[in-house]
Amino acid sequence: MMMQACIREKMNIPVVFDMFYRKQPFGGGYAIFAGLSELLQILSQFSFSKDDIQYLRQLGNFEESFLNYLQEYHFSGDIWALTEGSLCFPSEPLIRIHTTLAEAQLIEGLVLNILNFQTLIATKTARMVYAAEGGKIIEFGLRRAQGFSGALWASRAAYIGGAMATSNVLAGKIYNIPVTGTMAHSWIMAFPNEQKAFQHYANVYPHSLTFLIDTYDTLQSGLPHSIQVAKKMRKQKIGIRLDSGDIEYLSREVRQQLNAAGLHSATITVSNELNEVIIHQLVQSHCPIDYWGVGTNLVTGGDSSSLGGVYKMVAKKINTIFVPTMKISDNPDKVSNPGIKQVYRFEDAQQFLADYIALHDESITPDHSYTLYHPSGDYRQFSISKYTHIIPLLSKVMQRGEICEPLPSLVNIREYVQQQLTKLDSTHKRIINPHIYKVSISEKLRYLKRSLLYHS
Amino acid sequence: MMMQACIREKMNIPVVFDMFYRKQPFGGGYAIFAGLSELLQILSQFSFSKDDIQYLRQLGNFEESFLNYLQEYHFSGDIWALTEGSLCFPSEPLIRIHTTLAEAQLIEGLVLNILNFQTLIATKTARMVYAAEGGKIIEFGLRRAQGFSGALWASRAAYIGGAMATSNVLAGKIYNIPVTGTMAHSWIMAFPNEQKAFQHYANVYPHSLTFLIDTYDTLQSGLPHSIQVAKKMRKQKIGIRLDSGDIEYLSREVRQQLNAAGLHSATITVSNELNEVIIHQLVQSHCPIDYWGVGTNLVTGGDSSSLGGVYKMVAKKINTIFVPTMKISDNPDKVSNPGIKQVYRFEDAQQFLADYIALHDESITPDHSYTLYHPSGDYRQFSISKYTHIIPLLSKVMQRGEICEPLPSLVNIREYVQQQLTKLDSTHKRIINPHIYKVSISEKLRYLKRSLLYHS
Repeated sequence: MMMQACIREKMNIPVVFDMFYRKQPFGGGYAIFAGLSELLQILSQFSFSKDDIQYLRQLGNFEESFLNYLQEYHFSGDIWALTEGSLCFPSEPLIRIHTTLAEAQLIEGLVLNILNFQTLIATKTARMVYAAEGGKIIEFGLRRAQGFSGALWASRAAYIGGAMATSNVLAGKIYNIPVTGTMAHSWIMAFPNEQKAFQHYANVYPHSLTFLIDTYDTLQSGLPHSIQVAKKMRKQKIGIRLDSGDIEYLSREVRQQLNAAGLHSATITVSNELNEVIIHQLVQSHCPIDYWGVGTNLVTGGDSSSLGGVYKMVAKKINTIFVPTMKISDNPDKVSNPGIKQVYRFEDAQQFLADYIALHDESITPDHSYTLYHPSGDYRQFSISKYTHIIPLLSKVMQRGEICEPLPSLVNIREYVQQQLTKLDSTHKRIINPHIYKVSISEKLRYLKRSLLYHS
Repeated sequence: MMMQACIREKMNIPVVFDMFYRKQPFGGGYAIFAGLSELLQILSQFSFSKDDIQYLRQLGNFEESFLNYLQEYHFSGDIWALTEGSLCFPSEPLIRIHTTLAEAQLIEGLVLNILNFQTLIATKTARMVYAAEGGKIIEFGLRRAQGFSGALWASRAAYIGGAMATSNVLAGKIYNIPVTGTMAHSWIMAFPNEQKAFQHYANVYPHSLTFLIDTYDTLQSGLPHSIQVAKKMRKQKIGIRLDSGDIEYLSREVRQQLNAAGLHSATITVSNELNEVIIHQLVQSHCPIDYWGVGTNLVTGGDSSSLGGVYKMVAKKINTIFVPTMKISDNPDKVSNPGIKQVYRFEDAQQFLADYIALHDESITPDHSYTLYHPSGDYRQFSISKYTHIIPLLSKVMQRGEICEPLPSLVNIREYVQQQLTKLDSTHKRIINPHIYKVSISEKLRYLKRSLLYHS
């Protein structure tokens, strides 16, 4: 409806929109930007079918001239964005869209739906991978995900965030993610006894022997039966999966008995409503766990089910120039940063030092010290001089609706995440109550913001 | 992988699976069963494309004979289910699937993905509708939903649960749900001032005038400008939308000033991170609110992002008879109910009295009193005699992979929900800490459960 109004009232002016978020998800110290390739592919193919137009016509709210406009519609904007897999922080534009007001409104739902969700899940996974300290995270979430695309996108984002595999075979196919499956309780229950179930499974998959051991009695039945079958098959490298009971107690007992049976290379997989806090705690207690199967909390975000990213107009073209615009709010944290902006990252050879949001036409060169201002608290500022690089983070990824560069593979995005994470100080990666990474604004942006506030 | 094992090891025996959940979502007193029509449609068309088979082949885990089986595959099971829109309670089978072990495992992810999510969202919405006490709930969730199908299915389930409309036009098209849209902040910011933005909007939509009034200053600017434009257009029935600030304070002020301006039939819509507890509190304080626009918490479930429904084998065919099976657990609440079961609802003319889970071949006739046993706590039981009807809740909806009856329309499902809710005592509908509705098992089922526990 807004779109038709823009066109009818001749208000379809060129505008610039930013997407950003205000608060790190999960009380964490960073987020992983994800979903960009998907968004660009969808935008580059976006159009209305005859069916869509017919549906809109019968709603009765739209004029024929507008429906004709939609019939011919293709996205024609320019997009600047962080590289997919970038570490990102509150207030920073993740993407910046240059287009017309009508188009900007049309794609709002699309942009937010894709980027909010995939960023949430990639971030959640990275937190789990960090907590696991070298243990592997496997995504098991299809049954608890929110819809099919919720499941598929979660598999994709989880892989980006560092999960090693998914149990969702369709996600494996679409995104070329490693897939993994394990034994089901019902397989075991279908046999007259557990031992037979294990033996038959071993006949089919002699090279991929993971036993689910909690169907009857984990330590009295499941574990000894697994060891028996392993010995009979002369296999060392079996897997044991625990899906209920106390993980700390059981994983220690299982490890001890596996070792006592000479199965030193056998691995232990655990699952059952895990999240990064539980993983962290078990790892800190030195539980002998190799693989963590995570479902609900990984694919929905658990109790933080939305990133809360927003999409705001930051500039509009009046005659020949872009004029900065700003959404005002009584809450200083909710006042958006006006104008067309670039984000810079100050780094030294070891690590990221601070991020810096500046107007896009400021000259940011690595030859002097900079004063960094807090985005909302006016009194906080600090100076930075000991850096080696200043990296601009937003680059042009779409021009007039066409994707600029070939999109990176999922594996490359995943590696980029891990690379970036090694440059983030561990205090920012702490699972609970992390050190806040500095995000700041330039003096010019600060001045612009204040002048728009007082002018309004 | 389990499927291939079933077929290769000649374990593809006939089985019966139940889907049920263990705990009401949101700490509430009931859930609304949703997603069935979608599940049945998808199952009735389920097959593997050549592409799918090729992908599975190159994974290297599957034999050609199994891939051939998949190529010919169509779901061939029978399904019994609650009517979509039924009120449901923990431990009750929501659907019961009669098929082979391989098929049962193949469709597990599908069944749980669809029913868990839609049931969660229909329930969340019903709670909001109840809290709103006659105010209308509008679903605004596309931008915060988990993926496209997360958004679409949320729109569908929210409509079933009692939402009056969605802002997602595609959901409107696919499911024939009323759609609604309002003014965007960026529309207002695109104009030199708010008054012009309102006036231009009124030119385009003179019959659907809802003003978003918090872009600059809600009471000093947004509201007086709305009233001016309404008067100029000689419109009484305008809408005012509040999207930030204190809803209680602002809604009262806005109502008062609208009334003072003679706009008694103007309506007030509020939005901004609402949930049923906030709605309940504002309604209890008699805030003059007509419409509630809800996004994140409605379409993701907020901090309960998954229903947690599970899918368990309850019987397997050995020779010619179905033998009950049961998943054993150290936790009594996690022991499943074995055997092929029916759920009965005891009612009187006014309301639902209790639910009763019995074996499917028990004769349950309304001619005597029944003893109802708690599903897990062995010592709790009570007797029921003052009822007028006993209604069996599971009916056959699919036979050998074919849908039995035409599927109900969404409007009919939605009406059925409201009908059912009028029969649920208000103590069970309380938003916080509700009275627990009685779900019980028959003496025969209790006996079977105990004998399987002691036998194992």
